[in-house]
Amino acid sequence: MRVEVINIGTELLFNRVNTNLNLISKILLTIGLKITKCTIVGDDKEEIKETFLKAFEKSDLIIITGGLGPTFDDLTKEAISEALNQNLIFKEEIWNTIIEKFKKRNIFEIPEINKRQAYIIDGSIILENKNGTAPGQILEKNGKIILILPGPPNELKPMLESCINLIKEKFKTHYIITKIFSIIGVPESEVETKLKDIIEENKENFIILAHPNLIELVLTLPENLKDKFYEIESIIKNRFGINYLGVDIPPLPELIGKLLKEKKLKLAIAESCSGGLACKLITDIPGSSEYFMGGFVTYSNILKKKILKIPKTVLKKFGAVSEQTAIYMAKNAKKYGKADISVSFTGIAGPTGATLEKPVGMVWIGICYKKNLYARNFIFQGDRQTIRERAVYKGFELLREIILKNGKKS
Amino acid sequence: MRVEVINIGTELLFNRVNTNLNLISKILLTIGLKITKCTIVGDDKEEIKETFLKAFEKSDLIIITGGLGPTFDDLTKEAISEALNQNLIFKEEIWNTIIEKFKKRNIFEIPEINKRQAYIIDGSIILENKNGTAPGQILEKNGKIILILPGPPNELKPMLESCINLIKEKFKTHYIITKIFSIIGVPESEVETKLKDIIEENKENFIILAHPNLIELVLTLPENLKDKFYEIESIIKNRFGINYLGVDIPPLPELIGKLLKEKKLKLAIAESCSGGLACKLITDIPGSSEYFMGGFVTYSNILKKKILKIPKTVLKKFGAVSEQTAIYMAKNAKKYGKADISVSFTGIAGPTGATLEKPVGMVWIGICYKKNLYARNFIFQGDRQTIRERAVYKGFELLREIILKNGKKS
Repeated sequence: MRVEVINIGTELLFNRVNTNLNLISKILLTIGLKITKCTIVGDDKEEIKETFLKAFEKSDLIIITGGLGPTFDDLTKEAISEALNQNLIFKEEIWNTIIEKFKKRNIFEIPEINKRQAYIIDGSIILENKNGTAPGQILEKNGKIILILPGPPNELKPMLESCINLIKEKFKTHYIITKIFSIIGVPESEVETKLKDIIEENKENFIILAHPNLIELVLTLPENLKDKFYEIESIIKNRFGINYLGVDIPPLPELIGKLLKEKKLKLAIAESCSGGLACKLITDIPGSSEYFMGGFVTYSNILKKKILKIPKTVLKKFGAVSEQTAIYMAKNAKKYGKADISVSFTGIAGPTGATLEKPVGMVWIGICYKKNLYARNFIFQGDRQTIRERAVYKGFELLREIILKNGKKS
Repeated sequence: MRVEVINIGTELLFNRVNTNLNLISKILLTIGLKITKCTIVGDDKEEIKETFLKAFEKSDLIIITGGLGPTFDDLTKEAISEALNQNLIFKEEIWNTIIEKFKKRNIFEIPEINKRQAYIIDGSIILENKNGTAPGQILEKNGKIILILPGPPNELKPMLESCINLIKEKFKTHYIITKIFSIIGVPESEVETKLKDIIEENKENFIILAHPNLIELVLTLPENLKDKFYEIESIIKNRFGINYLGVDIPPLPELIGKLLKEKKLKLAIAESCSGGLACKLITDIPGSSEYFMGGFVTYSNILKKKILKIPKTVLKKFGAVSEQTAIYMAKNAKKYGKADISVSFTGIAGPTGATLEKPVGMVWIGICYKKNLYARNFIFQGDRQTIRERAVYKGFELLREIILKNGKKS
């Protein structure tokens, strides 16, 4: 069975594509469906029609997102309506809902243009949009399902989820189980070399995804072979030891959060080069206030001295990017942050600021936990953002390692 | 002229699509080219072949990214080679470069599998990859240009840039100027209503992009009409006043940075609900150490008291999410952060933590600058990430406003 996604948007608006495709892909995987192909076209009626008709000819499930806004350049519904030769009809009930939504935001003079959002393709079923004004639509034709959804991810998500059972029933999808095994601190080619035998054996079902500091092995198996997952997991565990993170684990910041919660530990973070990124990633997780005390973004040396009390002599003798500073940062973040464990980051994120001894990408990461107080040095490749991201993920990796090695709070 | 981008990756790996498309689109715009269509297909040879042949038939410039890794599931080159009926040939020089790169990373036993990266399509020109091991390729055929580039954005970017002149020469592109006018603090439909006349008049050349707290009007005009930009800008300026941000401005955090630098102001930030995001966005900008002192991510109430010295009585009487707390946070962030200006964020990012009086999305933003010390209350819609993002961008908006209204450092 083929699944196609068509993203409608201008050729400049790709910001949502990533989020939306990840969302759609994840939701479809729960019923064993994978996206075969995805196309992004601009708000160009002819281009949308042609892309849609090609997808409609070849695929069974077609998910169209975006281009449902009120403005003149939103043409998705017009294009699909023409392609299918089914009229657009005005729905009073949708218009009333839109009026209600504007009222809630204290807007009583609704731009006339918003009326465009109250039209749907004749024969389709309205999908309610709880987070926005543009409703979605679901259409069945020639044994196929066509879904038309708005572009904003928070609107799209619940709407797609509400259709998932219908899609499952319709296509009687072969139930498939997907497991993701995560490995940390090992390059992609080493993972593949070490697992050559099992990858060869399950070639059709394996996908390797390389993230910064993390490799994911995605294994998809039919339900009747599910025992194989345990077999394969024990092999991976065996070959990668502490570098094996687990199966179907949440992203590293969430994993760290779980670990901290489980061990009843409070975390504090001191950041220089990472500039708040580590705190941001930790607090992305709802409920992080349970284990996150706070962070010291001591970007300037003055604040390193005044707030984190790094001795002037240390900064002068060894510099802000040094083992000693990283250690002090971690130690005092724990102390002043009233925490049990801490991590610190100080380095050269670039593109400027490098010296002969301290190249762009050099980062010292400090750890303070129980009797452990140390800093480790890394040189990360990439641009400013990549270096910062890799440093922070490496810091999380070190946090995980030290917690696992040292059991619970003393 | 048609431009197509084909992203090759597994159906799970959409993380780079967004970044890559933005990059490619931006680079192509400099020579007046727009992406007509973009397709994402998995590492499936037949699917890649079919997609490529369709693009090759219809389009003039085809940019293919991804699937050039060393592992078995990277099939891009094989697919294009078969589609064009041109062999893959091993290039000793590429292999030597790969060996050198591994040596630099202190790896001397190079996995045999990496040899796959040393093959290119017969007749193509090698594009050097300074940031990774997979080289790119450029091919001319039937008056068309085919570019094959690696997936990682930091590898792709310089490689595409190095081809841009060649593409320009080849297609003698009609030189086109693009200007982006940014408007802040006004909803999309209001922007369109207020500018109805000029949008109607330039319908073909206008694109409206709605970001959180920011609307971009993208106007594309042939060079001989470039005076029209000034005309249109003065209309927009006139109708939106202080809400008009400017033309071709950098992202808001960078704009704030420029403003701070220009006015010789030092910034400090106090964050609760935004958890480091504001600091992260400010320090995303290279050189931000010139104006950013640091941030206090006082996620817990203990740190609000201990680090930012918010009086216990204030927290007890009004709560952490209150006008009073936001004001104290801003005031003390400025004081202890040794800064001239500060912004603070405290609110309910959700999904939990709401009360009857303080719903999810309620955020107090505090500002302290010269004699100005105040906090404003907002209720942002959306999920946790959206609320945090909107709050931070609104804070930046308030920073900009207060600086513009108050001239330079006293």
